[in-house]
Amino acid sequence: MGKVEKKAIKEKIILGLDPGTNVMGYGVILIRTRTVTLIQFGVIQMGKTGEHALKLKKIFDRVLALVDEYKPDEVALEAPFFGKNVQSMLKLGRAQGVAMSAALFREVPITEYAPKKVKQSVTGNGNASKEQVAKMLMQIFNIKEMPKLLDASDALAVAVCHHYQQGTIKIKAKSWDNFLKANPGRISGNR
Amino acid sequence: MGKVEKKAIKEKIILGLDPGTNVMGYGVILIRTRTVTLIQFGVIQMGKTGEHALKLKKIFDRVLALVDEYKPDEVALEAPFFGKNVQSMLKLGRAQGVAMSAALFREVPITEYAPKKVKQSVTGNGNASKEQVAKMLMQIFNIKEMPKLLDASDALAVAVCHHYQQGTIKIKAKSWDNFLKANPGRISGNR
Repeated sequence: MGKVEKKAIKEKIILGLDPGTNVMGYGVILIRTRTVTLIQFGVIQMGKTGEHALKLKKIFDRVLALVDEYKPDEVALEAPFFGKNVQSMLKLGRAQGVAMSAALFREVPITEYAPKKVKQSVTGNGNASKEQVAKMLMQIFNIKEMPKLLDASDALAVAVCHHYQQGTIKIKAKSWDNFLKANPGRISGNR
Repeated sequence: MGKVEKKAIKEKIILGLDPGTNVMGYGVILIRTRTVTLIQFGVIQMGKTGEHALKLKKIFDRVLALVDEYKPDEVALEAPFFGKNVQSMLKLGRAQGVAMSAALFREVPITEYAPKKVKQSVTGNGNASKEQVAKMLMQIFNIKEMPKLLDASDALAVAVCHHYQQGTIKIKAKSWDNFLKANPGRISGNR
């Protein structure tokens, strides 16, 4: 199958990221019309020792390397909006900001998803455990072994969530009236 | 005065940054042996409208442009560690992380200072107002007009603080004994 033909059947690569100060998960999926294929997923460990700035630099460099290697069309970010305390949120915010910078530097658009939304989207339950999310992904992608660090499956989950969300955005409607206006052909009689 | 001569008398450029989500202040100073000269200071406004990711991209692009234009040897960052709530800290953390990424991407070392430390260092009072900090800087650099946005003077202040800190680091001692060990020549009798 030639490259041009591939483009014609709407191919898209999504990079999912779950940034943290010590560990960052990533997951890369390929969407081809309606099929979703796993390309890669894993974790990048920043190491517990060392200067804070060095960890941030590592996040930036590694996200840039992922973007340059897989050339994603879109980046999806797992972004918790609540945390234990202001200290941890500042650290998390920095890790998120650094990861986002690398994608934005290469002009790749970013969409953020709250963890609850990701869980809901992948498992149907917004309160699912990380293990339940991982098990569902293993089923979807026929993965034999559970990842050791669930940051990897979390990142893969946000990529899958992003794909699902985009599929449903077109028929999203706030009310039945809006739905009718947006989808006149969907109603018999076509009023 | 030739370039080589300049280098021989230890010239250094410090870029001070005060990152925020809506406004980022910056200040550039040149240190030549013991004299400090103001090169530039101002603010970059991210704009109140527009997507959050676009603001972050603007922070990254503008800090990268500042680093590429002034080629600082070091970056000093005003970094509050406490905030009103987790939401605002997450946003601030992102802005900080993005600004730091741009400097780290160009391999420029970063040092962070808490606002109280900056105020203490510049005015001698850790609880000084932004206006008091600005007035002290106007005096140091013979600036005629108070900046409209005090984010600019805050950023200049952190650059000056970084310079002062480096000057005192060599004689910093935790105890008198350490001081004596570190500075044997400073004590008469030279024991």
